[in-house]
Amino acid sequence: MKIGFDGMGGDHGPIETVKGAVDALSLVASNIVIYGDEVKIKNELNKYKYEQSRIEVVHTTEVIENDDKPVKAIKSKDDSSMVVGLKALRKGEIDAFVSAGNTGALLAGGLLKVGRIKGISRPALCTIYPTMVGASVLVDAGANAECKSRNLIEFAYMGSMYAEKVIGIKQPKVALVNIGAEETKGTPLYIETHQLLKETDLNFVGNVEGRDVPSGNVDVIVADGFTGNIILKLTEGVALQLVAGLKTQIMKNMIGKIGGMILKNNLSDFKKMLDYTEYGGAPLLGLNGLVVKAHGSSNAKAFMNAIKYAQIGLDSHLVEEIKKKVASFPKPEMKEEQESEV
Amino acid sequence: MKIGFDGMGGDHGPIETVKGAVDALSLVASNIVIYGDEVKIKNELNKYKYEQSRIEVVHTTEVIENDDKPVKAIKSKDDSSMVVGLKALRKGEIDAFVSAGNTGALLAGGLLKVGRIKGISRPALCTIYPTMVGASVLVDAGANAECKSRNLIEFAYMGSMYAEKVIGIKQPKVALVNIGAEETKGTPLYIETHQLLKETDLNFVGNVEGRDVPSGNVDVIVADGFTGNIILKLTEGVALQLVAGLKTQIMKNMIGKIGGMILKNNLSDFKKMLDYTEYGGAPLLGLNGLVVKAHGSSNAKAFMNAIKYAQIGLDSHLVEEIKKKVASFPKPEMKEEQESEV
Repeated sequence: MKIGFDGMGGDHGPIETVKGAVDALSLVASNIVIYGDEVKIKNELNKYKYEQSRIEVVHTTEVIENDDKPVKAIKSKDDSSMVVGLKALRKGEIDAFVSAGNTGALLAGGLLKVGRIKGISRPALCTIYPTMVGASVLVDAGANAECKSRNLIEFAYMGSMYAEKVIGIKQPKVALVNIGAEETKGTPLYIETHQLLKETDLNFVGNVEGRDVPSGNVDVIVADGFTGNIILKLTEGVALQLVAGLKTQIMKNMIGKIGGMILKNNLSDFKKMLDYTEYGGAPLLGLNGLVVKAHGSSNAKAFMNAIKYAQIGLDSHLVEEIKKKVASFPKPEMKEEQESEV
Repeated sequence: MKIGFDGMGGDHGPIETVKGAVDALSLVASNIVIYGDEVKIKNELNKYKYEQSRIEVVHTTEVIENDDKPVKAIKSKDDSSMVVGLKALRKGEIDAFVSAGNTGALLAGGLLKVGRIKGISRPALCTIYPTMVGASVLVDAGANAECKSRNLIEFAYMGSMYAEKVIGIKQPKVALVNIGAEETKGTPLYIETHQLLKETDLNFVGNVEGRDVPSGNVDVIVADGFTGNIILKLTEGVALQLVAGLKTQIMKNMIGKIGGMILKNNLSDFKKMLDYTEYGGAPLLGLNGLVVKAHGSSNAKAFMNAIKYAQIGLDSHLVEEIKKKVASFPKPEMKEEQESEV
C-alpha cells in the first residue's frame, strides 16, 4: 500500500513534512509518496538516512495557500501538491492522502476530486479529542458550519465507526453536544437530532453538556461543524492559558521555582497529556477514499502520527466499513439526497 | 435601595443563600429582602449577628424546582419565592432581584412578570468570563438557544454596556465568536451578524476563534445562547479536568508530593484565578429591571458576590443606560419587532 502525503502543506513547509515522513517509515507498512517541489523535498530527504525505495517524490509546481478561496484554488491550481495527490487517490495510485493544507480546500478537493460515499450527504472532520482518561472522538470538527439533522446522524455513524475501528473502543458511547441533559433542550435542530439518534442502532447515551465534554465519559461527541470547531479550539485555548498561568505562578518567586524544579518530571507528564501532536491527524470521513487533515501547525512528530493514523485507518478498512454501514442507515431521513454545497 | 433575593434558589437552599445575604451587607449600600420560607430563613438568620433592620424576610409558600417547566411553573406557582420577587421588582418594591433558581423559569418570569425593555427583542444572560488577564463578558450565555442577527446585535450592545458600566472597561473591544478570523467564515447567521456589527458604533474588533476566547484579548464575546452556553460550561469543564490531572500528577509519587507542598501557596493563587464564585452572578440584560442569575451550585461566597454585582449594576444605572442606548440602535434591523418565544 501507499500513503500519499502533501509535502507543501502546513505552516513549516518541507522541513517538518519530510522529517515526519521519514520518521513515519518505521511505524507504517505502506510506502510514502510525497507531492511537492521536488528540489526542496529532495534537499530535505538528503539530510536523512532511510530506506530510499520506500519514499517516492512526485513533482508538483503549485501550492494552495491558507488564504486561497477553497473551490477556486482546487479548480485553478491543477498542479498543486493537494490536487495532484487527491487525483492520485481517486485513481487508486495511492491508498490514502495526508495534508496539513487549507482545510476548506482539502474538503472542496475531496468532494470534487475524490467524491463522496454514496448515501453520505456531507463529509465531516473527525478528530480525536484527548481527555485525561483516554481518547474521545469529536465529529464534525469544522467541515460543515451549518448542518441538518441528517448530517448529524451521519456524523454520529461515522464517528462511531472511527472510534471502533481506529481507536479500538467496543460499542462506543455516542452523545450529542447540547446545553442541557433533557431531550427538549437546544435548538430545533438538536431536539430533532436527539429523537432521530434514539431510533438508530448506535449506542446513543443522550446529550453531553459542555462541562462533560472533556471528562472522557462519552466516546463520540457529535456536533455541527460550527459548534465542533469552537469546542476543539476552545479546549486548546483554555489548556494553553492554564498551562501559561501555572507557569507564571511557579516562576513568580524563589519558592515556586524550587517547587517547580522538584516537580519537573511530573509536570512534563502533565503537558504530554495535552499534546495534540500525539494524534496529529483527523480524517475527512464520508469521502470515497481516506483523506486525513493534519493540524496546520504540525511539526514532524505530528506528521509522523498523522501518517501512522492513516495506516491504522487503512488496516481497519475504515472507508469500506463506512460504505457497508451506510446501507444499514435508517431510511426515513435518507429520502431527500442533499448535495454538498461546495 | 433594596435588593431582592431568592432565598430558596440554588442547590444548597437557605443555608448558603442566607449566609451569602448576611455576608453581603458589608459590601452593599442597599438593604436586602429575602423571599422564601420564613421559618427556614429566620432559623438560618438567627445563626448570625448582623444589622437586623437591613434584612427583611417576605414569606412565600412555593418553590420552583430545577426540573419544573419554566412557563408553566411561573404561571402556576404564584406564591413561589421567584414569582413574588419578580412581581415586587415590577412594582418597584425592590430595585433588583437575585436568584440561583431554574434559569429557564427566571427568564420566563422576567419576561412575563417584569417585561422587556422596549426595543429589545430578547433578553440575554450576560456573564463574566474570567481570564488570566482579567474579566471578559460573554453574552448570551444560554438564555436563547436559537437567535437571529438582530438578537446578536442587541447582545453586543448590552454586553458592551455591561463591560463599561459594571466592569469599568473603557471602549470595550467587542468580538463575534466564529470559526475563523475572516468575515466570510461561519454560518449565514454569523456572516450576516459580522456585517451588521461593522456598521454599529460599537468598538467591534472582528471575529474571535475558540482558541482566543480565553486569552482575554477581547472584552465582549458575542454568541448565540447555544454556543455561549457551551463555551461557558466547556471552559469550566476543561479547567476542572486540568486541575484534577495536575493533582494526580503531583500526588503520584513522593517527589511530586514534596514539590506540591512547596508550591502550595502558588497553586492556591492559581486555583483562585479559576474561581467562579468571585463573580457569582450574571444579569439577564434586556429586562425592564435588574434580574441577576446566580450559579445553581452557588455557595455563600458566590451569593455574596452576586448581590455585590447587583449593587454595582444599580449604582451604574445599567438598565437605564441600556434603555437610553436602545434609542441609538441602528434602525434598519429594528423594523420588524420580534416577540420573544417564551
